[in-house]
Amino acid sequence: MEQQNIKPYVIGLDLGGTNSVFGIVDSRGEIKATTAIKTQGYPTAEQYVDACVAALQPIIEECGGIGKIKAMGVGAPNGNYYSGTIEFAPNLEWGHDGIVPLAKMFEERLGIPVALTNDANAAAIGEMIYGVARGMKNFIVITLGTGVGSGIVINGQLVYGCDGFAGELGHVIMRRENGRPCGCGRAGCLEAYCSATGVARTARELLATTDRPSLLRELNPEDITSLDVSITAGKGDALAKEIYEFTGKMLGEACADFAAFSSPEAFIFFGGMTKAGDLIMEPIKKAYDENVLNIFKGKAQFLVSGLEGASAAVLGASAVGWEV
Amino acid sequence: MEQQNIKPYVIGLDLGGTNSVFGIVDSRGEIKATTAIKTQGYPTAEQYVDACVAALQPIIEECGGIGKIKAMGVGAPNGNYYSGTIEFAPNLEWGHDGIVPLAKMFEERLGIPVALTNDANAAAIGEMIYGVARGMKNFIVITLGTGVGSGIVINGQLVYGCDGFAGELGHVIMRRENGRPCGCGRAGCLEAYCSATGVARTARELLATTDRPSLLRELNPEDITSLDVSITAGKGDALAKEIYEFTGKMLGEACADFAAFSSPEAFIFFGGMTKAGDLIMEPIKKAYDENVLNIFKGKAQFLVSGLEGASAAVLGASAVGWEV
Repeated sequence: MEQQNIKPYVIGLDLGGTNSVFGIVDSRGEIKATTAIKTQGYPTAEQYVDACVAALQPIIEECGGIGKIKAMGVGAPNGNYYSGTIEFAPNLEWGHDGIVPLAKMFEERLGIPVALTNDANAAAIGEMIYGVARGMKNFIVITLGTGVGSGIVINGQLVYGCDGFAGELGHVIMRRENGRPCGCGRAGCLEAYCSATGVARTARELLATTDRPSLLRELNPEDITSLDVSITAGKGDALAKEIYEFTGKMLGEACADFAAFSSPEAFIFFGGMTKAGDLIMEPIKKAYDENVLNIFKGKAQFLVSGLEGASAAVLGASAVGWEV
Repeated sequence: MEQQNIKPYVIGLDLGGTNSVFGIVDSRGEIKATTAIKTQGYPTAEQYVDACVAALQPIIEECGGIGKIKAMGVGAPNGNYYSGTIEFAPNLEWGHDGIVPLAKMFEERLGIPVALTNDANAAAIGEMIYGVARGMKNFIVITLGTGVGSGIVINGQLVYGCDGFAGELGHVIMRRENGRPCGCGRAGCLEAYCSATGVARTARELLATTDRPSLLRELNPEDITSLDVSITAGKGDALAKEIYEFTGKMLGEACADFAAFSSPEAFIFFGGMTKAGDLIMEPIKKAYDENVLNIFKGKAQFLVSGLEGASAAVLGASAVGWEV
């Protein structure tokens, strides 16, 4: 009899600028069913939610119906956990000029609780529930993608701050003089240097301001990506390696400051750029050791996300559902 | 009958490098009795605790005996909340070369629970229980004294991190190039510029590297204190004002980075340097507004400690007792 009450699954929605990926996930992080739609092409949020629900129905049935599902978690740009809203998300045509109560809209359509947060926070909860942060109470996830995001966990709780927007570590200032302009409108932010776009920019700067040889010179400078830099560094190209050393050094210096804030037991790196492996992780660790306050030395681990490749973001989003 | 079980008081101990000040405090922050001993002059921690207990006995009796006292809170340099120990405190002759289990020692002697943390954390708990942070769940206390300390509260809980030493915001790096040497052995720390000693140092640097007129030139440079700078600025001295503007600007820039971490509803400044009032607070607020990420603008208040002058530290320490 008791078995009838058990709801073994949550729905995860990784709401990206291009694709919206759904997964139905069990408590061990196994994805039971998955589907996806395009995020764009809907003039209103209502139409977007209609399309989501239509796509979800078959996989919900496949897993035994909505009665088997405890809740839904959403990882979305500019997602606010407190209000369940997406606020002025620049890259969403149905959400760029206002506040979309997305959690409430899904709740009304699906009849289950829905929680929403930004993608970096979702990644942090995902690491805590399914990933390398299982059992940890104090850690920081840093997402290295188009931008630099972060999810901070203290005392086993995600840090949302007074407004739901805490944990914007991509926007601490690393260069107070002559800093690179950042997409946020300020200059010198960590993100302006250490995101995938920042790495590509470092490459273009180094190629333009020096005449050092590099395999990167075979590419059109405007087309260079962080992946190109990683592949070229993997071939032993000194200049490409130096770009990752510069990037890792700044990340390590930033982490040393973050340690002074929350003394985490681990820094966990998430996202495409972690594929560069030791190329990026070794300079991070070296700069951290050289810069961190004495009392914190040797206390934090430096880890790469334990969530599996393409499913990482949807797993992270689903994990938010377990927190409802 | 129920009244007999009520324990209306806690003991607070503000353990400073020179004096150890005790207060017996009620839940509204009223100090019922107080006493003090010198911190130094005891070769061992046991002898120090003996002297403390001897000094405490009369004021405990005055308040109705130990049965009326719920717990004791201690604010101490290098105090670790998790372990109740003082660890390698450089300024304590009975504690500089080891780990002193001070909380346990007091517990055994007094028969009540004892909690211990560093002075900045004690100040933060004090503000939350008795001061301007009553009702707040997310705020940062920054202590401006001989050093720069901090106590961070997130979700209503003090941030101790994985090791009990989190919240060392005086040691985030504000100048990565040519930073001033800091007492911690590194360079460019917030504390090296914005502590009372940092302010005096800024004064000496400005006097030595310019020939601008200033009333501060009437003093022996080596004897200048932050109080001298504050008094001189109060007389309208342009150079002295500029020193506080420089100091406040850096504090405001630092707070803008801290907002990206925990998005607090308030920054609360504590300690002697806050007596400079608007001289320091106005440049802090101005630099914060100019530097903080857009989404955090206008959300945080800038406040001066609500704990009363000379009693502030002992009130803070006592507040730790209520948290036991």
